[in-house]
Amino acid sequence: MRLYGYYRSSTSYRIRIALALKDLEFSQDAIDLKNAEHKTAAFRALNPHQSLPVVDCDGRRLTQSLAILDWLEAAYPTPSLLPANADHIQLCLELYYAIATEIHAPNNLSVLNYLRKTFGATKQELERWNETWIHRTFEPVEQRLAASDVSTNGLPFGAPGLFEIVLIPQIYNARRWHVDLTPFPTLVEIDAHCATLDAFVRAHPDNQPDAPETNE
Amino acid sequence: MRLYGYYRSSTSYRIRIALALKDLEFSQDAIDLKNAEHKTAAFRALNPHQSLPVVDCDGRRLTQSLAILDWLEAAYPTPSLLPANADHIQLCLELYYAIATEIHAPNNLSVLNYLRKTFGATKQELERWNETWIHRTFEPVEQRLAASDVSTNGLPFGAPGLFEIVLIPQIYNARRWHVDLTPFPTLVEIDAHCATLDAFVRAHPDNQPDAPETNE
Repeated sequence: MRLYGYYRSSTSYRIRIALALKDLEFSQDAIDLKNAEHKTAAFRALNPHQSLPVVDCDGRRLTQSLAILDWLEAAYPTPSLLPANADHIQLCLELYYAIATEIHAPNNLSVLNYLRKTFGATKQELERWNETWIHRTFEPVEQRLAASDVSTNGLPFGAPGLFEIVLIPQIYNARRWHVDLTPFPTLVEIDAHCATLDAFVRAHPDNQPDAPETNE
Repeated sequence: MRLYGYYRSSTSYRIRIALALKDLEFSQDAIDLKNAEHKTAAFRALNPHQSLPVVDCDGRRLTQSLAILDWLEAAYPTPSLLPANADHIQLCLELYYAIATEIHAPNNLSVLNYLRKTFGATKQELERWNETWIHRTFEPVEQRLAASDVSTNGLPFGAPGLFEIVLIPQIYNARRWHVDLTPFPTLVEIDAHCATLDAFVRAHPDNQPDAPETNE
């Protein structure tokens, strides 16, 4: 299996976590988003969406991180990425989709570039923009977890799965953009717990072959 | 089953189509997004995400349209919302998630209001903004369908399902924002075909109890 990704692309990070949780071996091809390598003709031929990640598996080419997660779960069902307790599945999916569908798109590099170019947005204005959409989604997610009867030992659904796969890269992103995370103690605790787990360490941006020696 | 929605909310529209395709009866409660009824304390108690739709079914309260679709498919598997041909499932999911995760969030009312307020965006600038994200996602979707071996009789996967559930409301939105759809003949053909199907007619914004007599 081969993963085309970028060390700090949050959607690539999702798939690295999922592959690590399922203990699947894969090789990596780095696509440098900063140098717009995803817009080259060569990459467009690989993925017309011009987005990361892409997974190549036995000639099957998979794109769109949520579709890749669905495929991984069907092809390699053990360990499952869904809660073992069937009563918790719907809450897990609700929080998973909230984070996956509401934050990534407005905070994506192409949107930020558009804001810079068309509206002359400053770095500070972009930080506030990012914080707005992260806070707006994290607030109900924090509230739902706090009000639910799911475990609060750092893994709300017992074992890490779909929810943590989208949450942890989003928290990494939030820190890069200096977003205040103090209103979200539960989410910060989940992040701290995941940081102690081997799969999340292996998937972390700093530990990828294309990560620079010193993060800018 | 009860659906809390708004006639022209695209995520409510998704669920109306799915319920109609599965021929499930439901009552509707209109939540007026234009008058910010989704931000009232009463609605926040119903759904902390302050978003539509919400489905209430036997005391179970479901939010986030993609999570509701997963639940509907599991609870009422016939007819399935996935392609009957297993080889087409991955393409269907890829295109489904592309439309669901890349367009709705940046073109959402709260983002448009932010652009107006913070960057003084004009109506024309907002139209260009919406068109940018719709075109950026529709282009590869059109290209992938044209290059695939799936049927092109107006229903790429044989029967309407997840893909059409997110596509048709997005095309409705695109027209509202005067987005040029001529580069997407396949998508326009799928839309025209769906417009002839009873489930899509029943789910259309104009045919909801809270639709105004004359659309503004």
